[in-house]
Formats: sequence, structure tokens, C-alpha cells
Amino acid sequence: MPDDRPIGMFDSGSGGLTVARAVLDLLPNEPLVYFGDTARFPYGDRSVAEIRSFAREIARFLLDRDVKMLVVACNSVEVAGIEELTDRAGVPVIGVIEAGVRAGLRATRNGRVGVIGTVATIESGAYLRAVAREDGEVRLVSAACPAFVPHVERGDTTSPELLAKARGYLQPLVAEEVDTLILGCTHYPLLSGLLQVVMGPDVVLISSAEEVAKDVYAALVRDDLLRREARPPVHEFLCSGDAGSFAELGRRFLGPEIDQVRPQSVQPAREGSGWS
Amino acid sequence: MPDDRPIGMFDSGSGGLTVARAVLDLLPNEPLVYFGDTARFPYGDRSVAEIRSFAREIARFLLDRDVKMLVVACNSVEVAGIEELTDRAGVPVIGVIEAGVRAGLRATRNGRVGVIGTVATIESGAYLRAVAREDGEVRLVSAACPAFVPHVERGDTTSPELLAKARGYLQPLVAEEVDTLILGCTHYPLLSGLLQVVMGPDVVLISSAEEVAKDVYAALVRDDLLRREARPPVHEFLCSGDAGSFAELGRRFLGPEIDQVRPQSVQPAREGSGWS
Repeated sequence: MPDDRPIGMFDSGSGGLTVARAVLDLLPNEPLVYFGDTARFPYGDRSVAEIRSFAREIARFLLDRDVKMLVVACNSVEVAGIEELTDRAGVPVIGVIEAGVRAGLRATRNGRVGVIGTVATIESGAYLRAVAREDGEVRLVSAACPAFVPHVERGDTTSPELLAKARGYLQPLVAEEVDTLILGCTHYPLLSGLLQVVMGPDVVLISSAEEVAKDVYAALVRDDLLRREARPPVHEFLCSGDAGSFAELGRRFLGPEIDQVRPQSVQPAREGSGWS
Repeated sequence: MPDDRPIGMFDSGSGGLTVARAVLDLLPNEPLVYFGDTARFPYGDRSVAEIRSFAREIARFLLDRDVKMLVVACNSVEVAGIEELTDRAGVPVIGVIEAGVRAGLRATRNGRVGVIGTVATIESGAYLRAVAREDGEVRLVSAACPAFVPHVERGDTTSPELLAKARGYLQPLVAEEVDTLILGCTHYPLLSGLLQVVMGPDVVLISSAEEVAKDVYAALVRDDLLRREARPPVHEFLCSGDAGSFAELGRRFLGPEIDQVRPQSVQPAREGSGWS
């Protein structure tokens, strides 16, 4: 039956706002509670145990706010494992990796797929495992692109330095003639112009932000969880760090809905709560 | 050499703002002058001659504002023919149809591609001709979806009525087992959740907004036309009809950049100007 509660979404920072925007585009009547853990951003250098514990805290926080679904809009969280969240949340949990992998496997014509991401994401091997699970015949070629996030965050998508770095990072994927490229980081959709130039016109780019948004849509329709209320939804954007700089990046990544960012700390998951 | 002038973009209404947003995402340092001909929207029922004359007027108006490129963010204009603009504008002219067709042909695995659009776009046969030009082996299956634009404009992407209409419109494409669907209308990216549900998970959706934005990026890089100026760009959003309702739709289609919409009429192209 219809469910007027908000969708909960979280990320280590502001990159997940590209996912938020894709969701709001496809579901303009759904309220969203977004949490960016900007005080502890980036998660890239954290241990898996630490990231899992952060994810537990944030999931608990969002579930306490009575969300009807959890969207893990962060590759770093997902590579550290979201099985526990999926098992215990009691609401549907949707992540970026499975959505991107499924779309990549659907799109490839020659069975060679590339994936790019942060060092932590690529080194985790999570995309390799996900592809192997779905289709053992497909060859996945990975590349870490550590410089991309800082360039995007300072609004640079076109500089010669960035282009040179991109050519270097992507060279192995071009050499292997991948025909599909999964953007395994929520910042990268903002680089799709650059990536298409470097990969060449025949490569299909997969934005996991878009793919997750379509998964969220499908899950709400399938499970009859759409909001029934007709008044425009009110969104909440929360972050654990500086609200001003989050709002500034947010205006570019997301849009006008970011007007009201509130600082928010999360408490460590309580012992004995089933999340400790 | 670098070119600090704005990109000019136009549409019959507000749908092209999805293209504007995709361009601003990929090129955050480029100023944009957008013209929505909302007073004469929709172009769907106009004659080809009339649409060509509107396109000439608007192109002239934008060129008078010294744009470095013209982006035709409107299928109805493009199906009426933009060869004349391309020949006479003196700046690069980029359109939605070629971008969408190219991406669709790149993505198909079984050689069967679908395209959806307004009645005018589909009946024009422009997509059929474009596909035949590029690859005579590919079979294109078309469907007009007249109800989609009004649903999107009133913020409905999920109602049972819309879903039923979509199933009806798309049934021939599902029956023909197209594996790729070109969204041949700038409003349709906002329906991609719905379209993926109806078409099934194996179909690749092509957003011409995204594809045009990548073409704009590639053209500016290739021709060395990127803006060099580092101050944040100032955009202009102009429309020929009611600025208030344009701004309201714009906030959802585009985002915060739409804050200042100005009403603007265009003069018929001058006799003897080469555009009459």
C-alpha cells in the first residue's frame, strides 16, 4: 500500500547528490532525507571495519527518522559490504554497484567492460566479484582515477591537466577495447563529456547515479510504496561537517532542493541495538 | 583559441532545459543563453515552413547576442530541418536527433532500436531517415507518445494512468524486441524510471539530452572554444511567453540556474539578412 515516508539516502560526502538528483528527477513527488558524512570524508583511506561501523550508525540514524528505503549512494560504503544493512534494515536497501554492473553487462556487445573508481573502490575488487557473480564470460578491466574527485569538486571538467590524467588512467581500458565503461564513483557523471572524448565515440558510458534512480523507481512501483500525498515533498539535506561548503557543492551537484542544509552528527550505533 | 562567448540554446518551450542542465553539468564554466519559445509552444501542430521560420528568427536573435555555438534542444525544430541553420550560422550547430541516433546505433546489440517522441516528431520520419543514413542494417521501430509531455509538465511520472498509457504506446516496441530505446523528446529523460519498467531491464535507454551535452563538450574541446575566464559564468534564460510559469517548470527541469527568467520577444528575421 502507498507509503508517504521519505526515502533515506547516504554518502560519505556530496558525490551522492548526483544520485539524489537523479532520484528526484524520476520521482518528483517523493521526499528524501540525505545524509552526507562530510566530517569523515573521504572514506577511501578508512578500514573496512571502520566504514561498516559508519554505515551502521548512519543507517540507524535514517531508520530512526522512519525512512521507507535506504539508498547507499556511495561506492566506498558498498565495497565495504552492505549485506548486513540489507539483512537487518527491515526496508529495501539499494546500492550503486549492483545497478551499475547490471547496466554494464546489459550494454556490452563485445563482452569487455571497463570500470573506473577511487583507489579504494577499485582495489576492493568489489566490481570484479559483482561481474563474476552475474556473468562469468564478461571480462572486466578496472582503473583507479584518484585525481578525478578533486578536479570535479573544484569545478574543473576541461583542463589540459585533467585531460592528460584521464588519458593516462584510461589507456589500459582503451588498449583492451572495452565497449562499455561503468562510472564507479558518484562524482563521475559530471565527467562524462571528458570520458566520452577519451574513450572514443563507440563506448557506452554507464552512470550508476541514473541506474540507481531507475532501480529506486522500480522498487517503489513494484512494492507499491509510492507516496500518495499530493503536496510537494519537503526534502532534508543533512551533513556531519561544514554545512556551508556542503551546500555550495550541493548547488552544483543537485540543484535548488539543497537550499536548506542542516548540520547533523550521528551517534555510534547503540550496543545491543542489533547494529553494534 | 579560447572563446569566452556564451553557448546559445533554444527550444519551443521548457523541455530543452533538460539539455541545458546536462550541458551545465559537464561544462560548469560555460555561460549559456537559453531561449524558450513558450508563447508559441508547442510546435507540434505547426507546419514545417512555420517552424523553419521560427527557428530562423531565434537563431538570428541568439547570433545577435554573439553566441559561439547554437544548440537546437528541440526535436520539433530539428525534424523541420536545421540544414539551413548549419549552413548559414557561421558557428557550430548541434542538434538532438543526430546525437540520439548515433548513441542508439552504438548501443544496440540485436540491430533493433526503438524511438519515441511527439506525434510531429515521429510522423516526420526524421529518425528513420537519420538511422538509414548511418546504418541501413538497423531496424528502427517508432512510437508516438502524445500524453507524455503533459504528464511530465504536471509532475506526474508514476500514476497508474500514465503507466497504462506507456504500456500501450510501447507495446509494439516490446513486441519487436528492440534492445535500445532512443528518447526522442527532451521531456522524456524525466520518465526514464517508468520507461525502464515498461521496456524491461534488458533495454538500454538513450537520453538525447545527455548525448547532446557530450557532443557540445567534444566540439568545444576539439575546436578549442572553451571559455578561459575563471569567474563563475552568468547564464541567461529567456522566454517569449509567461516568465513565471517557465521559471516554475524550469526549477524542476534545470535547477537553481533558472532563478532569473526574462521575457523576450523575437523579431521576424529581417528581409535580406540571409535568413528571410
